[in-house]
Amino acid sequence: VTVAQSKFARVLAGVLGIVVDHGGRVAFVHQQRGPYAGNWLLPGGAIEIGEPADVAVRREVAEETGLEVTDFRPFALYELRGTWFEGPYHLLMLAFRGTTSDVIAEAWVGDNVADVRQAQVGDLPLHSTDLMILSDAGVASFSDSAITSALAADEIDMRAFTIE
Amino acid sequence: VTVAQSKFARVLAGVLGIVVDHGGRVAFVHQQRGPYAGNWLLPGGAIEIGEPADVAVRREVAEETGLEVTDFRPFALYELRGTWFEGPYHLLMLAFRGTTSDVIAEAWVGDNVADVRQAQVGDLPLHSTDLMILSDAGVASFSDSAITSALAADEIDMRAFTIE
Repeated sequence: VTVAQSKFARVLAGVLGIVVDHGGRVAFVHQQRGPYAGNWLLPGGAIEIGEPADVAVRREVAEETGLEVTDFRPFALYELRGTWFEGPYHLLMLAFRGTTSDVIAEAWVGDNVADVRQAQVGDLPLHSTDLMILSDAGVASFSDSAITSALAADEIDMRAFTIE
Repeated sequence: VTVAQSKFARVLAGVLGIVVDHGGRVAFVHQQRGPYAGNWLLPGGAIEIGEPADVAVRREVAEETGLEVTDFRPFALYELRGTWFEGPYHLLMLAFRGTTSDVIAEAWVGDNVADVRQAQVGDLPLHSTDLMILSDAGVASFSDSAITSALAADEIDMRAFTIE
């Protein structure tokens, strides 16, 4: 992958989904690709051209977790900036929240993810970017200082725009 | 410009700015490039990698209109989809509103725009996408049916996400 070919060579427009089950567990994926590879993240990815954002989030979540979510609602837009081995990356991620009553099958293998887990927040070592997103969605309540210091440790510049 | 090289070959993350003066006039640019070339639009353009969205909107507005705006606030995210001669285009535009007390100089020549004008809404033939944006910002009050029929005539699929 060269910088010229990478989708991270430009600002990437993406989506992510918080999927909560009846027990309050959230679906996480162990990401294999991109600037945050090797971390537990919320499922999501790039919007494909011509694909509305709400369709994109359902597709990405289904591809990665197998969960079919029908009640996604957007709650925030995140701007994420930092540097990885390819150079600078810059993401604009539209974040949705939805629910499921399904359980991910043991044998499930998601696209481009090393692992998938439905877990209580706190039962997995979360990536620094998860803290703000989960708190904004009302799924967790990390303090501003915890969020700020986690992002600073990863040298990530993160800004939220709250969607009504 | 080929499809492979064009910045419109992927979802484009951009910004636009509504700049209102003390007389209620709004800054418009006559766009020379992109899917809406040949129309009066709000100034804006693509976010450059590593450049925060609020910096991008100040830069784009300054490049196109010469106006230095210091009080931009985000109010909505727009998803715009359609087709032009290159093929499908898909834009995610973060929209800001700000004010100015400056008047654009008669001799001003903006980057990549054919003309620049500070005008009352209604004194220029606006592009269909302007109607929703100006109404959301409280600068105009086009009806939902006027907005819907203008967009339908241009075969544009437009959705707003309101920023708190």
